[in-house]
Amino acid sequence: MKIYEFRAFPNPLRARMAAAEKGLIDQIEFVQIDLLAGEHKKPAFLAINAVGKVPVLVLDDGTTISECTAITEYFDHLDGEPILTGLTPKERAITHMMQRRAEALVLDAASDYFHHATPGLGPDIEPFQIHEWGDKQREQTTKGISYFNSVLQKQPYVAGNHFTMADITLFAGLALADFIKIEIPNECRHLKLWRDRVAERPSASA
Amino acid sequence: MKIYEFRAFPNPLRARMAAAEKGLIDQIEFVQIDLLAGEHKKPAFLAINAVGKVPVLVLDDGTTISECTAITEYFDHLDGEPILTGLTPKERAITHMMQRRAEALVLDAASDYFHHATPGLGPDIEPFQIHEWGDKQREQTTKGISYFNSVLQKQPYVAGNHFTMADITLFAGLALADFIKIEIPNECRHLKLWRDRVAERPSASA
Repeated sequence: MKIYEFRAFPNPLRARMAAAEKGLIDQIEFVQIDLLAGEHKKPAFLAINAVGKVPVLVLDDGTTISECTAITEYFDHLDGEPILTGLTPKERAITHMMQRRAEALVLDAASDYFHHATPGLGPDIEPFQIHEWGDKQREQTTKGISYFNSVLQKQPYVAGNHFTMADITLFAGLALADFIKIEIPNECRHLKLWRDRVAERPSASA
Repeated sequence: MKIYEFRAFPNPLRARMAAAEKGLIDQIEFVQIDLLAGEHKKPAFLAINAVGKVPVLVLDDGTTISECTAITEYFDHLDGEPILTGLTPKERAITHMMQRRAEALVLDAASDYFHHATPGLGPDIEPFQIHEWGDKQREQTTKGISYFNSVLQKQPYVAGNHFTMADITLFAGLALADFIKIEIPNECRHLKLWRDRVAERPSASA
């Protein structure tokens, strides 16, 4: 298998963590796509992923899979023990709900702020910015962080008692928030403790 | 099981179609939440779903599940035959990829246009609108529709040879596009033929 990625960025981190959690990291060849040079918007990469995003997983039969949830579903089902996405219908439902919330309320919101209200990847790659939208999404990110603090006050992981892909998504969202200087409010101590625990997992530095 | 919904709207349609495809519709009590009156932003409903959105599935043990992908994962795994979300790791990956694209490129984009650049649910419920963002997302919706036409030129369903949740999401996205008068370009005939076929499924009028 091959993954096209840009190592420092949050969505590639999600795919790496999922692969590492499943013991698959050594089976993957990682290929760097230079987002700062706009390589993801050029024809050679668009032929691999029409929507121009990393990470992209390419299977040995040539099938290309983008979107981190999809890549995680693939890795998680290879051994028939989907611990990252849920073993029962109810676990699956809760994990996908929290995973989508971690995207919408934190990671995607922070990403919108980065692309719309900061220089982002630079003027050549971000020709269309709406500052007001970016600023609004910065506010959303802070609200989202507080929401997840309240979740983690009640349970050890984002989707309940076990580490899942929802934890990976929130962890990547906070990495992006750090990078663009969106602070975790001081009162979010449950979230900070959870983050320390996740950072200790080998997958977090895979 | 109980579902809180607003019958005419696209995301509730997704949950209904998923339930109907799995033969579960008669086991569900549907409760209407009046979005036009802002009922989804009031404390009684926020106690059920903190993010203020429909549909919400409430299981018999009181567990609440929001986000359509999560609800679909639940229904789809109850009988151990997840035909809507994929039977193999590769099917699951492709289905989740196309499902996320149908959201991001069509349904969520059209929804942003509705909420930001039309009166949406009215001034009391939409206090913060960014017209420029809404207009940009209208353009995105049209581009997304063209992208899916190109997909459906090559294969009978959005994720390949079988009907899946990705078809449900795109079908709901087009229903919203109709409602807010975003036209399907005339040249998108593969998409139109696919849509006619999906509309004939009993689940589409469940």
